[in-house]
Formats: sequence, structure tokens, C-alpha cells
Amino acid sequence: MGTTQLETVPEPKYWHLKTVLSEALDSEFSVGEILPNERDLAARFGVARATLRQALEQLELEGRLQRRRGVGTTVAPPRMGVAVGSEEHVWPGAADDAWQPAGCATAPPPNAVAGLLGTARDEQVHTVRRSRVSQGQPVAAELLYVPRASLPALPEPPFPDAPSGAARARAVLRELQHLGLEGQDRAVELGSARVEDARELDRLPGAPVLVVTTRFFAEGRTAAVSVATYRADTCRLTFGDSGGVEIHHGTEDEVS
Amino acid sequence: MGTTQLETVPEPKYWHLKTVLSEALDSEFSVGEILPNERDLAARFGVARATLRQALEQLELEGRLQRRRGVGTTVAPPRMGVAVGSEEHVWPGAADDAWQPAGCATAPPPNAVAGLLGTARDEQVHTVRRSRVSQGQPVAAELLYVPRASLPALPEPPFPDAPSGAARARAVLRELQHLGLEGQDRAVELGSARVEDARELDRLPGAPVLVVTTRFFAEGRTAAVSVATYRADTCRLTFGDSGGVEIHHGTEDEVS
Repeated sequence: MGTTQLETVPEPKYWHLKTVLSEALDSEFSVGEILPNERDLAARFGVARATLRQALEQLELEGRLQRRRGVGTTVAPPRMGVAVGSEEHVWPGAADDAWQPAGCATAPPPNAVAGLLGTARDEQVHTVRRSRVSQGQPVAAELLYVPRASLPALPEPPFPDAPSGAARARAVLRELQHLGLEGQDRAVELGSARVEDARELDRLPGAPVLVVTTRFFAEGRTAAVSVATYRADTCRLTFGDSGGVEIHHGTEDEVS
Repeated sequence: MGTTQLETVPEPKYWHLKTVLSEALDSEFSVGEILPNERDLAARFGVARATLRQALEQLELEGRLQRRRGVGTTVAPPRMGVAVGSEEHVWPGAADDAWQPAGCATAPPPNAVAGLLGTARDEQVHTVRRSRVSQGQPVAAELLYVPRASLPALPEPPFPDAPSGAARARAVLRELQHLGLEGQDRAVELGSARVEDARELDRLPGAPVLVVTTRFFAEGRTAAVSVATYRADTCRLTFGDSGGVEIHHGTEDEVS
């Protein structure tokens, strides 16, 4: 069984196994199919269980396999493309917003967020929790932080500290719409799912996630900061600054 | 020692430890400092070694800790913001391009890339290998795939299969400049470092990476596809469609 590498590079054993397994997934298995158990797989490829497990972990990281309790290891469907920051999703709460508000609290944000918002350390801000569903699956959980100064017209609830519901979340989003959005920027980085996010995303706490931090600028200041946690196993985040993603997809299909 | 969670959520033990450790990192340690060994840490926090290891893995995933062979576990500096797809870096090989060409081969691309390019299964394409350095550290390795049809004026080397050097890479990039870029789109997803990339990025094979796939459109077709692998431990990818990232940073510093 020859290696497919073009260059001569010392390859760890599990890495070579991963390549071989990946080819087997393409040729012998279909999406959703359950893999044989670890003992049988290790025997088939003539490797130690530890080596097999490392290779399976890699394939899970790359989104090729899913491991679910009580089900076993299955062949994952291709990752979903989830649009981030397309022109249509600029302002939280806009009519065609992909996010569903779930709740709202008023609390001091994490220090890093306070830094981005330019609020004082213990200053309370509106914190809207939203979730995003794509193709029937939860793909992301978000906390949207809005300084009270951004929304002077919003009536304050009688007990500012008490978390309140989706109705208040909608009120915050509605007020945001009245600001003129001047720009936004975002950063994507690797993170691990917090306990609340994990529950919402149907993952274990600590599972790898893609964290997208977006700053929204209005009236010469940072009017809101969104911290969104996307499932890293099932999602690829798409950015189309040409606005031509779907169109070009179509063109390719016609050409090929 | 109270939990800092607002909501009552069942927390795994290592997760709580992670929170406590994270606070200790903020208050007691400085960047680059070596952590006590696992035995001492486990004793200090009154947890099993396995629990401690899980918490350390989480903190590594979040970029708070770095584990290096022969050094131990150190406190990581904040992640570097690395600009992706800003207006200045639109076309590979442009004068202010952040990438350095390292080599070039002519070979069939992976099937997924062939699909994006619309090339036939075994069709050979120019494959330019480039690397990106930021603040003196390697941050990304890239393979840039260019169908031969995109560059009809490029002279073919005598042996098309033979990998050739940086000179040929530059020739491919120079020819690309002659095409009018019409648009681009990109996707970001989690991956694991391939053996060649790991070596270039000073990581172990299989380390988590952020994979950025960019399609460049010119003359009504996909003229090139870039697959860039960024270190997930040290990088956060920044996207500034307002072009105002640095300006707003400056403004905030003045305000606070």
C-alpha cells in the first residue's frame, strides 16, 4: 500500500492511517453509515487501537466523522455552508435576519467585550441571546451585547438585573434598527463550547467551535458587539464580498 | 469558591476547573511564564490529574496556553489578528501581497479543488506553495491552484510533472496579475494540519488549523482557488468589510 504523498516527509503512523481511512470512507461507506467497532477496524488495518483512535479523532476534527453517544461513529454529511456577514445580514434584528431571539438579560459583559464596547468594567449592558438554525439543525448560539447608551429610548425594566424573555430581546433589536449602521468588522477564531452553548448546539461542553466576534459601528462608536459560537464539526462559514457566491455556484454547475 | 455562572447549569468538573485556572492565569501569571507541573497544579486545585489535563487542553484550544516539547506549558500571548480578504490582498501576487512564494508544481489537485475549479479529474494545474509570516512568526501555509487555461501565455517547463522552484511560482503569480479580478468569495472551517503544513507552521501534524478556501473569479470563471491553513492557536482571522478596523481601534483607545 503506497503512500500518496508527493514529497518525502516523515509521516506519523496514525496520519497515514487517516489517509487510508479517508479513502475507504469515500469508496466503501455512505453518509450516515455506522463504522465497524474500533477492535474490528484496528484488526482490518493492522494497527493498534491507540493509533486507530488518533486517526478517528483527526477525521472527526476534519468533519468527516461524527461520534455520538449510544450510536457510535458515523460518516458525516458534507459541512453546511453558513453565510456570515453577507450584505443581507448586516444589522441584528433586520427583517431577513437569520437569528431567532431567545432571551435578554442586563449584566456586565466579559472584560474583553467591555474593552470592545468601550464601557466601564462593571457597567451593565443589554445582553440578547439568539440562536441560529440552518437546514433544521442548530448551527450557532450568539450573545449580542448592546450598551445602554446605544439605545437611550429603550424603557428600562423595573428590575434591571432580572433576566427577561424573548419579548425584551425583540424590543432591544427593534431599537437597534433605528440606528444607522456605518460599518462592521469581524474576527474568526477557534474556541471551545461553553456549557450553555454546548447544550443549545447539542454538543458536549468543550467541543471545538468557531467563534465569530462582530463589531457594529453606528453614530461614530461601537454600537453593539456580537459573539457567535458556530459548531465547527458541521459548519463552514462562508464570506462572499463579491455577493456572487450562489450565482457562481450555478455557473459552475452549468459548465461542468 | 463560588461558581461565576449566572444560570444554574450542570457543569463538568474540568469545566469549572478551567474557569478557575483561567482567572488564575489573569491574576497570577504573565505571558510566557511556565506553569507549575501537572502534579503540583492538580494538588493545588484538589483535582485528579485527568481532570487537570482536560482543563489544560481546553485552555490550549482557546489559545490561553501553549504546550511545547522540552519547555512545558506556558501562558500564551493574545492571539494575533491576521487580516484575511481585506481590499489590499485581493489578487495573489499583487505588490503588497502578504504571502511569500516558496515553490511551484504542476499536478492534479484534490478532488474538492478540481470541483471548485471546474477542471477534469486528472487535469494538471499550476500549484503554487506560499507562506505567510506575521510579527516574525509563520502563521499560514497556502496552496494556490491555477488551471493552465487561466494562464495561456505562461511558458510550460520542459517536464510538466517536475516540481520547480520559487522562480516558477513568481512567474505564475505574474501572469495572474494580467487577469482582471471580478470577485472572490471564501469559506472558513476547522481542519487539521497536514504533515507538510505542520512542518512549515512549527506544529505537530494533526494540530487544529483554520482552513480558508478562497475562489478568485476572472473572465467569467473561477480563475484560481487558494487553500490556506492558518495556525488556530496563535491566530484570529480578521475581516473588515468597512475597512475601518484600525481606525476604530484608534478611536476607542482615545475614548477609553
